[in-house]
Amino acid sequence: MARPHVVVIGSGFGGLFAAQALAKSEVDVTLVSRTVAHLFQPLLYQVATGILSTGEIAPATRDILRNQPNATVLLAEVTRINLDSRVVVAEKLSKTIALKYDYLVVAAGAGQSYFGNDQFATFAPGMKTIDDALELRARIFGSLEMAELSEDADERRRLLTYVVVGAGPTGVEMAGQIAELTHHTLRRSFRRIDTTTARVLLLDGADAVLPPFGPELSAAARAELERNGVEVLLGALVTNVDATGLDVKFSDGRTERISAGCKVWAAGVQASPLGRTLAEQSGAGIDRAGRVEVNDDLTLPGRPEVFVVGDMISLNGLPGVAQVAIQGGRYAASKIAGEVTGHPVTTPFRYHDKGSMAVISRFGAVAKVGRLRLTGFVAWSAWLFVHLLYLVGFKNRVTTLLHWFITFVGRGRSERVTTEQQLVGRLAVKQLGPEFQPTIGGTLEPGKIKH
Amino acid sequence: MARPHVVVIGSGFGGLFAAQALAKSEVDVTLVSRTVAHLFQPLLYQVATGILSTGEIAPATRDILRNQPNATVLLAEVTRINLDSRVVVAEKLSKTIALKYDYLVVAAGAGQSYFGNDQFATFAPGMKTIDDALELRARIFGSLEMAELSEDADERRRLLTYVVVGAGPTGVEMAGQIAELTHHTLRRSFRRIDTTTARVLLLDGADAVLPPFGPELSAAARAELERNGVEVLLGALVTNVDATGLDVKFSDGRTERISAGCKVWAAGVQASPLGRTLAEQSGAGIDRAGRVEVNDDLTLPGRPEVFVVGDMISLNGLPGVAQVAIQGGRYAASKIAGEVTGHPVTTPFRYHDKGSMAVISRFGAVAKVGRLRLTGFVAWSAWLFVHLLYLVGFKNRVTTLLHWFITFVGRGRSERVTTEQQLVGRLAVKQLGPEFQPTIGGTLEPGKIKH
Repeated sequence: MARPHVVVIGSGFGGLFAAQALAKSEVDVTLVSRTVAHLFQPLLYQVATGILSTGEIAPATRDILRNQPNATVLLAEVTRINLDSRVVVAEKLSKTIALKYDYLVVAAGAGQSYFGNDQFATFAPGMKTIDDALELRARIFGSLEMAELSEDADERRRLLTYVVVGAGPTGVEMAGQIAELTHHTLRRSFRRIDTTTARVLLLDGADAVLPPFGPELSAAARAELERNGVEVLLGALVTNVDATGLDVKFSDGRTERISAGCKVWAAGVQASPLGRTLAEQSGAGIDRAGRVEVNDDLTLPGRPEVFVVGDMISLNGLPGVAQVAIQGGRYAASKIAGEVTGHPVTTPFRYHDKGSMAVISRFGAVAKVGRLRLTGFVAWSAWLFVHLLYLVGFKNRVTTLLHWFITFVGRGRSERVTTEQQLVGRLAVKQLGPEFQPTIGGTLEPGKIKH
Repeated sequence: MARPHVVVIGSGFGGLFAAQALAKSEVDVTLVSRTVAHLFQPLLYQVATGILSTGEIAPATRDILRNQPNATVLLAEVTRINLDSRVVVAEKLSKTIALKYDYLVVAAGAGQSYFGNDQFATFAPGMKTIDDALELRARIFGSLEMAELSEDADERRRLLTYVVVGAGPTGVEMAGQIAELTHHTLRRSFRRIDTTTARVLLLDGADAVLPPFGPELSAAARAELERNGVEVLLGALVTNVDATGLDVKFSDGRTERISAGCKVWAAGVQASPLGRTLAEQSGAGIDRAGRVEVNDDLTLPGRPEVFVVGDMISLNGLPGVAQVAIQGGRYAASKIAGEVTGHPVTTPFRYHDKGSMAVISRFGAVAKVGRLRLTGFVAWSAWLFVHLLYLVGFKNRVTTLLHWFITFVGRGRSERVTTEQQLVGRLAVKQLGPEFQPTIGGTLEPGKIKH
């Protein structure tokens, strides 16, 4: 009899940990992903700000699973799932493949949500993929390059203004890093602009940064951000984003136009569209963020062979964090392994909250672990330890630690390369806009900073 | 009186070393480059094959010159030079800037040449820029990903065939690395294809690999390449390249069609088009590769204030290597410094050949230093030492050494990330071609390798 075939969709935390947890089971695992790499999303902001290389946070999935003979990795994007015939259809370039499954683990994750304003994406990229991070890297450093070329004070001012929308961990870490970059790291690298005059704004519609961390840490994080030169604007709803800036409406009714060269969107998530497919076919509910309401064992209603894990699920208000995906992936694998061996797991999925943390500044972080509340260097050390622990692979741990050492102690930012394609093609149209004013005829004088 | 203004065009070896050599001079230096980084071109093939990250071989130019107060770095592409009015015009996005110079150092380098067949570039990218390297990374690894998805034996065969055109150091190192990758590194990473069956072909119109190294080392290099599974085809002229392969005409009149998924062009160089501008305005000669015939002090005829260095010059048959550019840049700087201080340098530029080397395989290389001829591990160690020495910056040396250690000892390839943009957009159109056959309807079986 053929071994059961487990198809896993997605190479993020949920999919990878599910596949790995099935290493010893008498099943064949096929992991289908539209990206070649397992992305360590919590460090994406470090790729965008020039600290880490893409390879350090995104090792090739097939490399990680190389020594697991029962796992096959396929690079293709799942476009259809048929629950009745138990078939997954995936495409890559003009190739279409079909996979029959006995068990299915859907861990396709979530993308950025613009709350119905997808046109904002052009001007304010999200922070979900390697492409996003490299695009933002080009914009963050490119804005300064363009400012250095500019002879117009207003334009320079705009190009030196950064806005991060969304004060969750990603937004907080991004804003903190941009402030560190402009106010410290790059201070001596430019001659015609003073990067320490850059404005870094962190906006959120809520009335606190990092609300899930509780009022104490939230206040500490805000104070630390402000001490590092980040302007925190709360109760601020973004009503429009375009090439040259954004419009904001504050909770007190005030509106403001903010001119900004570089905009980052870290405000909301939207589960993979596969969630809708699953919900429609199984009758499961779906929430506004596209997350599927699963049973307490992570299966779809009436489909005990189909598991949904990670950012795609709506269950007891579980947050969209790595640990929910990791534990969900492992739980689904244990259920499958149990059925295959005839020892079914009957306990529901139970999430064990290992805590959460966010880096605010160089050597400064906030962390919440159980009842413990940490700030400053202690929290930062905990962050370092935990992130190293979860980075996949010896090489990544060693080189990343070295990179961090050089970055945090020496304030260097060595991974700053942007492609011509990004700088010329995308930056031009998307960031600076067609109305970007050319400077013609003026001769730049050599020499020192002018303001 | 204003200090003399030296404009340097290009951030490669010639431009960077010229700018740095003027650090102590009473001049203002403006370095204009169309890329943000100083590219260590000899290691570009390691970025393409997943060994190094882009940041390791391309540190930001303005970072390198950060502590040189008389140097300003501008990101813009020089589009015009007016020798009579001593003005350089450069553009970035829709910005145009003009720079008046007292001295000009043109070090704009060379791009790939397809010998009049620029349409080949779409199907066989060159190896000159970071964009090239990342594009090739997507194709080298992407070809295997597509082969893993394929159910057609001929198609798999084609996708598993790599052709490198040009058996100079770049081509030799590239072919050697692809062989290492497919025959060793990735051997256990795929389930449906056997990457050790990949064909790696190295083609050249000449009758030897690495001809400037002399017959002894050339034969040693060829033997080592073949021992490592590279098929060396000499006297082979490429007459056409398209999506699915290339046509070759051999010196004995035979013609052959080679089906290949991934094609790399490392066959010829063409100096920057700025060379033609300089030649036209100064009356200097220009050779077929667009290189300018300069005076023996690297100046243009009748323009003692304009220096041309590196890959752009035609002088006494000097080769297009890093050392010619480095020494030329420094010489130009010494001439300028001499004139500024009233102690003009009157000796002509003299190139000191420090030797050349090429890596053939893991721990194997050939090196020619003076009358010394080295092969094998000794040559490889020399290569390691010299390349570390010339890498810019402490961090790059340390992390690169670590990367190399992990790569060469552990056979890892950790920098393999390709963007969606590359994989979906460019790979589809350029590598696989519109005639790439879709597989529809077949259900992939899970499990082991089939051939």
